[in-house]
Amino acid sequence: MNDSTTALEYPANKLAIGHARMLDAIRHRWSPRAYSDRAVTSDDLTALFDAASWSASCFGEEPWRFIVASKDKIEEYQKMLGCLVEFNQSWAKNAPVLFLTVTSKNFAHNNKPNGYAMHDVGMALATLMIQASSMGMHAHAMGGFDRDKARSTYNIPEDYDLGAAVAVGYVGDHTLLPEGMQKTELAPRKRKPLSETLFSGTWANPAAL
Amino acid sequence: MNDSTTALEYPANKLAIGHARMLDAIRHRWSPRAYSDRAVTSDDLTALFDAASWSASCFGEEPWRFIVASKDKIEEYQKMLGCLVEFNQSWAKNAPVLFLTVTSKNFAHNNKPNGYAMHDVGMALATLMIQASSMGMHAHAMGGFDRDKARSTYNIPEDYDLGAAVAVGYVGDHTLLPEGMQKTELAPRKRKPLSETLFSGTWANPAAL
Repeated sequence: MNDSTTALEYPANKLAIGHARMLDAIRHRWSPRAYSDRAVTSDDLTALFDAASWSASCFGEEPWRFIVASKDKIEEYQKMLGCLVEFNQSWAKNAPVLFLTVTSKNFAHNNKPNGYAMHDVGMALATLMIQASSMGMHAHAMGGFDRDKARSTYNIPEDYDLGAAVAVGYVGDHTLLPEGMQKTELAPRKRKPLSETLFSGTWANPAAL
Repeated sequence: MNDSTTALEYPANKLAIGHARMLDAIRHRWSPRAYSDRAVTSDDLTALFDAASWSASCFGEEPWRFIVASKDKIEEYQKMLGCLVEFNQSWAKNAPVLFLTVTSKNFAHNNKPNGYAMHDVGMALATLMIQASSMGMHAHAMGGFDRDKARSTYNIPEDYDLGAAVAVGYVGDHTLLPEGMQKTELAPRKRKPLSETLFSGTWANPAAL
C-alpha cells in the first residue's frame, strides 16, 4: 500500500489508537517538532499540494492559496521563518519546508463573503497532512506567526485571510529539540472519547452507535 | 491496501487526475448526490468519526462536535433532513446517514475566541471524508441548510458555530436523481492548476517546483 513503508519511522506511541479500519495515513499522522535534515524533493512537494488541491470546497471555489519556501533557497526560507513567533522558530528552523496557507474571503462567483473560507483551507490542509503521512512525511500547523508581517512580506491582498503556517519534513531526533519540547514530542497522543463529541437527537446526547 | 477494493465503485471520470503518488483514498474522494439504499453499519460510522477525531487542531482543542442521524431511526433522520434547504433535501434524502458539524467558538483553555474554530472542524471533516473514501463510502458537505432551525432543533449552544451538513453513504444510480443534477453527477472533476494556487517568494508568483 502507499503508506506501508512509513510505519517504522514513527514513535510507536504517536500512532492513533482507534478503530481497526482507520486508514494508515490517518493513524500515522501527527504534528512533530523534531525534523531531520532530509530534504523534501520537488516532486514530493508537488504531490502534497496536488493532493490538497483535490479537497472539497463550498461551490467548488478552491479558496485556498499556498506560499511555500524550501531550504534549498535559503533566503526565501529565512524570510518565511522570520514570520513565525520565536517559540516556533526554535524548532521549525529544522524543517526543510515551510509554507503559509491563505484563503479568499469572498466567493469568486458573486464576490459575497465566503463563510467557508477558513473551513475549506482547513480541509485542504488536512488533506495535505494525510498525503504527507502516506509518504512518510509529517506536517505541523502553527497559529503562532506574525500575520501582519506575513501579509506585507508576501504582498497578500486584503481580500485574502491568513490561515496557518506549516512546517513539513521527515521526523528527526527529538533530543536535538530545546529541552522543554522533548517530553511533548514523545508523549502518547490522546483524544476526547466520541461520547463527548458525537451526538444524536439533541445536543450533548452521546450517539449510540 | 485499505482502499484497494473501492476503485470499481466509482465512475472513472471522478478520479482525481494528478500526481502518481496521490493516496488512493484522496484520489477517489468526491461529493456525489446519488446514494444507494445500502446502509452504513454502526461500526463503519464509528470508524468515520473516530478517524475525524484524530485530526490536528489548534492547541489540541478538538473544537469539533457532530450530530448524526441514520435512516434506521427514521424520525431522527427526518428531523435532520428537514433542516436542509429544499434543493439539498431532494437528493440527500437517499443518503443513509446525515450529520451536522459544529465547532466551539472559544478555546476551552482560556475562553478566548478560537480563530481556527471553522478551520479545525473543516480539517476533521476532510479527514472523515478521506476515511470514508478508503472504505468505499462518500460524503457530500452542504452549506445549504437552515442554521437557525438546526440550532433550535438540536439545542446547539450559542458558543458553538454551525459548520456543514453532510450526507454519507455509498454511490447510487445517478438516473434516479432529479434530471438537472444528473449531468453534474457524471461530469469530470477539475481543479485549478497549481500555478494558480501555489506561490513562492511573493503573492501570485507560481512556485517553481
